[in-house]
Amino acid sequence: MPNRTVFYVSDGTGITAETFGHSILAQFSAKPRHVRRPFIDSVDKAHKIVTEINAVAAAEGRRPIVFITLARLDVRSILTSDQCKGLVMDLFQAFVEPLEREFGLKSNHRVGRFSDVAKSQEYNDRIEAINFSLAHDDGQSSRNLEAADVILVGVSRSGKTPTSLYLAMQHGIKAANYPLIPEDFERGHLPSSLTPYKHKCFGLTIDAERLAHIRNERRPESKYASIENCRYEVKQAEMLMKRSGIHWLSSTHKSIEEIAATILRDVLSDPTS
Amino acid sequence: MPNRTVFYVSDGTGITAETFGHSILAQFSAKPRHVRRPFIDSVDKAHKIVTEINAVAAAEGRRPIVFITLARLDVRSILTSDQCKGLVMDLFQAFVEPLEREFGLKSNHRVGRFSDVAKSQEYNDRIEAINFSLAHDDGQSSRNLEAADVILVGVSRSGKTPTSLYLAMQHGIKAANYPLIPEDFERGHLPSSLTPYKHKCFGLTIDAERLAHIRNERRPESKYASIENCRYEVKQAEMLMKRSGIHWLSSTHKSIEEIAATILRDVLSDPTS
Repeated sequence: MPNRTVFYVSDGTGITAETFGHSILAQFSAKPRHVRRPFIDSVDKAHKIVTEINAVAAAEGRRPIVFITLARLDVRSILTSDQCKGLVMDLFQAFVEPLEREFGLKSNHRVGRFSDVAKSQEYNDRIEAINFSLAHDDGQSSRNLEAADVILVGVSRSGKTPTSLYLAMQHGIKAANYPLIPEDFERGHLPSSLTPYKHKCFGLTIDAERLAHIRNERRPESKYASIENCRYEVKQAEMLMKRSGIHWLSSTHKSIEEIAATILRDVLSDPTS
Repeated sequence: MPNRTVFYVSDGTGITAETFGHSILAQFSAKPRHVRRPFIDSVDKAHKIVTEINAVAAAEGRRPIVFITLARLDVRSILTSDQCKGLVMDLFQAFVEPLEREFGLKSNHRVGRFSDVAKSQEYNDRIEAINFSLAHDDGQSSRNLEAADVILVGVSRSGKTPTSLYLAMQHGIKAANYPLIPEDFERGHLPSSLTPYKHKCFGLTIDAERLAHIRNERRPESKYASIENCRYEVKQAEMLMKRSGIHWLSSTHKSIEEIAATILRDVLSDPTS
């Protein structure tokens, strides 16, 4: 799909439009050019965007795809009018009306989902979770582990840190993480500071070959990165996790989003919030 | 809206369904109960979810709202059939068909947007950006700053760290951050290690009262957290940022999502990717 441009137009950050657009376009193996246009919250700005969309349409000879999340009706109507030469995907309209009927309520046309939640409890919890996860990254602190919602364990570079930060940022979950090291393998059990919290431990493992590749980028030619050492550590860590009876999975072919969704399901016993 | 349950049902992580659902429900000031059901990728699992939805409908006497992102037609048809007593919001159907016509292509019904991208270049760039942002948090390292896409500056606790991590995680942007400290105010210019990179610096400021509140949670009764000191630091930092001619904004009433969207627009000169 060459020469196709996709616009994300929102009166807020545009995150919803973008998340949704990426998902839909993944159904087409499309690699279009993405143009993000957040904070379009006035009629003037809407007219400017339409001009930009029409210029792209003329230059490329194909309609741009335009995902919109616009709460204000006067702004929205400019994008959805015949003036606009894009193929407009109006995310709100398709779903707001059936919900208004279902709830027997009018929608409030509130602009920007993230805007008034900025200082909400939910938002503050997310920021606090990020700080917690940073302070408890890589076994830095065993203090206050009772406050953790989940404790990730695994060998160095198995994906613990990005997963912890993702859980905190996206879901407001306090995720500590703890490396499994040779001393743990010799003792044959989880670090003793984790023993009281075994029910909230979750293990990550990874293919030894993939691990060696990742570690070699950091410390080329080291024992740490050698395939023999990676095979040893991975095998020991998996034995230890099996013996401990904790949930665990391999991060080798999984994204942090998938690992996080699994942890939410298995450890944090959805339904949540 | 009491006693209303919202399901997010997906064959992948459910992030798209959830992001979208939260956005739509924000239009109704709704505070429903959220139930996340990821990885629903077989007919058996689909039938189980329908049973669960119907049990909730019977117990609550109201239809649950069900946001679905299901690529497989056999799985999807179970959720959208009359058997299912929820109000089903089918995110793909409404938009995939117009796009198939526009592109002259059939969609590939690929399950899980994050699944096969896990080891893609884009994914690896995001993980690398997270590692970069962690290594360059709070001025920890001035090495390799030329590789930064953006460098956030501001007084301690003005929101630099969560914003850096968000930019890395969500957008794959290498965001370093650097604290502004009394020595910088005395010298009256940005830290000298940043001088060559002024074009990619972005400043964060914050109301002194809000800053004092945040700092007091960390170090109660300290000079660091006192309102006088916070007023001094904020005033000096704002003067310094103005004098330097860098872009900056106040994080006081903004979420990290909004700050990130502004940085993408102002510093990283969208269109991106």
